[in-house]
Amino acid sequence: LQSFESKYLEAKQFFEDFLEDYLSSSPVIDETLKKSIVYSLLNGGKRFRPVLSIFVAEALGIPPKKVLPFAAAVEMIHTYSLIHDDLPCMDNDDFRRGKPTNHKVFGEDVALLAGDALLTQAFSIVAQNYQHMVLVQLLSEAAGWKGMIGGQIHDMLSKKKQLSLDELMKINENKTGALIVLAVVGTLEIAGVSENLKVPFYSFAKHLGNAFQLKDDLQDSERAIEPGTIPSLVGIPKTKEMLVEATRQAKNFLNKIDIKNGPLVDMIEANFNRID
Amino acid sequence: LQSFESKYLEAKQFFEDFLEDYLSSSPVIDETLKKSIVYSLLNGGKRFRPVLSIFVAEALGIPPKKVLPFAAAVEMIHTYSLIHDDLPCMDNDDFRRGKPTNHKVFGEDVALLAGDALLTQAFSIVAQNYQHMVLVQLLSEAAGWKGMIGGQIHDMLSKKKQLSLDELMKINENKTGALIVLAVVGTLEIAGVSENLKVPFYSFAKHLGNAFQLKDDLQDSERAIEPGTIPSLVGIPKTKEMLVEATRQAKNFLNKIDIKNGPLVDMIEANFNRID
Repeated sequence: LQSFESKYLEAKQFFEDFLEDYLSSSPVIDETLKKSIVYSLLNGGKRFRPVLSIFVAEALGIPPKKVLPFAAAVEMIHTYSLIHDDLPCMDNDDFRRGKPTNHKVFGEDVALLAGDALLTQAFSIVAQNYQHMVLVQLLSEAAGWKGMIGGQIHDMLSKKKQLSLDELMKINENKTGALIVLAVVGTLEIAGVSENLKVPFYSFAKHLGNAFQLKDDLQDSERAIEPGTIPSLVGIPKTKEMLVEATRQAKNFLNKIDIKNGPLVDMIEANFNRID
Repeated sequence: LQSFESKYLEAKQFFEDFLEDYLSSSPVIDETLKKSIVYSLLNGGKRFRPVLSIFVAEALGIPPKKVLPFAAAVEMIHTYSLIHDDLPCMDNDDFRRGKPTNHKVFGEDVALLAGDALLTQAFSIVAQNYQHMVLVQLLSEAAGWKGMIGGQIHDMLSKKKQLSLDELMKINENKTGALIVLAVVGTLEIAGVSENLKVPFYSFAKHLGNAFQLKDDLQDSERAIEPGTIPSLVGIPKTKEMLVEATRQAKNFLNKIDIKNGPLVDMIEANFNRID
């Protein structure tokens, strides 16, 4: 029996091979822009969202390769958001995952355009590979002013005031949850599942996104409790309880569609236990 | 007989009414983000691209209102590119069209996100209003690393070296021409025209885009001849000759499809004569 860890790494590699092929087969792009894009897109992230799409595809019985272009689109949007977030006018971060941030290596102007290009290319890869206009709709909503950007601006502007737990949860849902939910619901659309499967899968994704962000917050809080985060508002023990509950709920909704074990359940567990 | 000027203003107003309705009917967006978006999107630009789409729709005999959401998408992409271009890490411009630039009013962080949101929303409005996936493909290619962004990065990185006329023409084609061509070819797709109409319309758009940029360069050169532009390389008289030729070619391709007068021809003329 294959361990979950090796299954995860296999899916991750499957996705990264696709991404590298896609980038190397893309026709003429300016060399500097391409280097900047490759630097951030192929930088050894967890690939949580694409692996999630692959595992959902497997659970639905469709060939995982069918979701790769869509998964690449989601990862491009995730990557662009990190590049723009790191810019001096935003979080002004010099390092990400132990390496200098994109603008530190390529300059702010190139980093800005690399982010813009990745966001644009996410839609291009979807248009090249699917006929489902609903995917463009899901992608733009999850990434846009009602989704990820909405969460970012709200987060940014609210740094100065004390938010309620509900407000913080809502920001996390938009900032982080939207793309995790997108990875799942986009795969459902590609697979063409019936409406009655969509609801529990959506709830699973929402709770998983929630658990993912809570775990991130808890990991970060081991270094320092950042103001404006859930641990700073309700304390670490209560945040841990919330993580336990989100984890339980995510599993609960998989249970409802008779998924009681396998990679999706393991993924929820792995998030709960991860140390990174 | 209605003058071209009043026809242009009517089409512009028709488009701006649609844009305002769209923005005011959009559900909850963060107020600051919305103000920043509205500030740049409803700022009294020429609306050259949307008016072009409307006139092409009329020439093809389809209701112009059918192209409004697509025209809005193109204008959103145009607007986002201006906001990002004006940022301190890019051109660092304090004024645009006589008003403080977006980041001067709202801060760099909000301006960055407003640009990101506009780019994202361009795809959203297309997905909401059309079934043609080819529109997403055209939009992402025109805006992306092979189109507008490709032109911007090339332009930016080449500021330090002397480019040939061909290289400068290529940059203009990507930076400015791509969205003008997009306004035309997207309309052709919406109208569902036959392939034999697409070729001359495409060539018309290419030459018009070219003429538009040459006219901009000539207008700018009356204040000061900027390095890295066509007038600085070949001189003003030669640039004027190029404008005459692009104008002639644009009309020539309309002629081939029996468009010998009317708003599209007038638009080519008006670009040739504009003072702005």
